Amino acid sequence: MEFSSKLLEKAVGEVSQLPGIGKRTALRLVLHLLRQPKEQTQGLTTALSAMRNDLKFCKSCHNLSDVDICEICSSVLRDKEIICVVEDIRDVMAIENTASHKGIYHVLGGKISPMDGVGPHDLNIVTLVEKVKAGHVKELIFALSSTMEGDTTNFYIFKQIQGLEVKTSTIARGISVGDELEYADEITLGRSILNRIPFEASLKQ
Amino acid sequence: MEFSSKLLEKAVGEVSQLPGIGKRTALRLVLHLLRQPKEQTQGLTTALSAMRNDLKFCKSCHNLSDVDICEICSSVLRDKEIICVVEDIRDVMAIENTASHKGIYHVLGGKISPMDGVGPHDLNIVTLVEKVKAGHVKELIFALSSTMEGDTTNFYIFKQIQGLEVKTSTIARGISVGDELEYADEITLGRSILNRIPFEASLKQ
Repeated sequence: MEFSSKLLEKAVGEVSQLPGIGKRTALRLVLHLLRQPKEQTQGLTTALSAMRNDLKFCKSCHNLSDVDICEICSSVLRDKEIICVVEDIRDVMAIENTASHKGIYHVLGGKISPMDGVGPHDLNIVTLVEKVKAGHVKELIFALSSTMEGDTTNFYIFKQIQGLEVKTSTIARGISVGDELEYADEITLGRSILNRIPFEASLKQ
Repeated sequence: MEFSSKLLEKAVGEVSQLPGIGKRTALRLVLHLLRQPKEQTQGLTTALSAMRNDLKFCKSCHNLSDVDICEICSSVLRDKEIICVVEDIRDVMAIENTASHKGIYHVLGGKISPMDGVGPHDLNIVTLVEKVKAGHVKELIFALSSTMEGDTTNFYIFKQIQGLEVKTSTIARGISVGDELEYADEITLGRSILNRIPFEASLKQ
């Protein structure tokens, strides 16, 4: 691509480093900013700089936060004895939207994945095990995605806390609400039958 | 979407104002920046600010430029008497890539489109007509897209310069190189037959 301006070329180059954004899309976005008032670009750059420089991770659960201990961890309404273990902060947001978890979270920051060079020590596992060892945790809910990496991570943590007095559970796998049975994959359908629940219990949900 | 951090929420809000980027994509991009070194975010914001604040429009052809008169307009190798009229700077880049135009450009900055509230006076038409009136232009090549708005704009400019001594032409419409005839639309196929060219001439292209 031939640019008539070095400034434009630099801006397009930087934007196209973002994941899923190619040179053409980057050019479209940059030209859009050029057509808008200068304040929009200024707002965007200020917000991004502030976010990157001032954002903190909660010292307790490693969720993103503006303060040292995040709102969820510092809330008196949450049960600190039930910890939901998730991969990243998007999972926290997804579960918070359902309003079904009354405990707190622990954000691992990824999954164990030797293929991508991610080992247990690259994740926030040590702090989780320490919390459990301190004895204030009643239940760990594993809410990682059901992939080989997710299962490996679950199992690694499970081995680390074996023998300690804590209940462990994993979120239910089954047919999505509203899904047709015939299109479900075999493993999911099989698991949904093995892990069936009493009909009366389902009526209350 | 519930955010655990106001800084994050603000950054996602600003990014999602870009065209074609929703809240989820914005969150993905912002989290990506968080995982990268701070220098990447800084590079991005600096490039965008510099681009928005310092980029100029060429005083002659309205193309984007770092200086008052763009490289194409100031080049001694280009024929200033042949002006290719285009909608925006992406068209200049597309045509420059083909290396088939040896003249200069005139960027209108859009098409006449009453539906979108764009009239002739919102575009760089006056400066084009002045150039032609000054008598230094031998040929105008209309290279606008073949839509109702493009045709309207072509015709409007054509009426403005009627009676002046200037040749006007429009880029050829026809079957794309490599396309199957049976999938071409009727209008394009019809035009490609009406505007057929001598076979010997096509051999030289």
